[in-house]
Amino acid sequence: MFQKKKMHSELPPIRQTAEEFTVVDGEDYLDEIFENDKRISRSFSHFQLDDEEYKENYGRVISDLLATGEHKFFVALDRYGRYLGHVWVCLKVDTVDFVPSAYIYDIETLSPGIGIGSALLERAEGWAEEMRAKKVCLRVELDNPARKWYSEKGYSERAVIMEKRL
Amino acid sequence: MFQKKKMHSELPPIRQTAEEFTVVDGEDYLDEIFENDKRISRSFSHFQLDDEEYKENYGRVISDLLATGEHKFFVALDRYGRYLGHVWVCLKVDTVDFVPSAYIYDIETLSPGIGIGSALLERAEGWAEEMRAKKVCLRVELDNPARKWYSEKGYSERAVIMEKRL
Repeated sequence: MFQKKKMHSELPPIRQTAEEFTVVDGEDYLDEIFENDKRISRSFSHFQLDDEEYKENYGRVISDLLATGEHKFFVALDRYGRYLGHVWVCLKVDTVDFVPSAYIYDIETLSPGIGIGSALLERAEGWAEEMRAKKVCLRVELDNPARKWYSEKGYSERAVIMEKRL
Repeated sequence: MFQKKKMHSELPPIRQTAEEFTVVDGEDYLDEIFENDKRISRSFSHFQLDDEEYKENYGRVISDLLATGEHKFFVALDRYGRYLGHVWVCLKVDTVDFVPSAYIYDIETLSPGIGIGSALLERAEGWAEEMRAKKVCLRVELDNPARKWYSEKGYSERAVIMEKRL
């Protein structure tokens, strides 16, 4: 453990290494994937949650999502094998179109703007095609700049999520 | 069976009886609920599906939805106890807000325009409050007039579903 830490401290910071990334199967990196996602996802909530509540509810969301469909993960790594980002995609029957569809549950990168997100998305779409999905779909918050990014990638808007506070 | 048919044929058509409806727990009406939903939902699909494919995929969607969360059904009945419409609501942890949320999975009526949908929605919202959900949410297709209807009921738009055909 000490050795590993020492070695890592001698490596250049990932902002210097991220540009030469590779994308590989992510199943061996689930701990890092969910650790990063858990940290980032909290900022999207419109509610104030204490740490314990968030931890419990986050776990519930993940286990609910994992309960149905066929799942695939990809990660982007730098040349030292360090985590740079991931995509989580799930094959399910679409609830409106009733055809096999690939849902992008999550796509994140520690180094935006250098093509990691695009590479992860392409890889997820490739997997979806192999799995004979008829479409790829995802949810984007109304105020999220990613809406424009997905539009540039060929995605179009299909439905809205509406809600009312109680 | 013959008896039941005969009796039903002597009743007035539901367009004459629907206005005096009542809303009750729907758990005893699941066959009628899913029979109606299965018929109506097909028209929302953007894909051409043969009967066998639709039947199989519809079944898969329902069992996936039932696999997680706590479910509640309400039905609207006329004074002869005949099915007029239903709502299906599910309590889950929201995937973005990480709070308990009530998802309206389905709301349908055979006699639109006489307040059955509003009564069903109110009942579902009441259940959600009892269950201590923090919000109620649902998906509406972009071109569905229900979007305006929900907006009048106090719902606001939060996110979009985007997709790309493969």
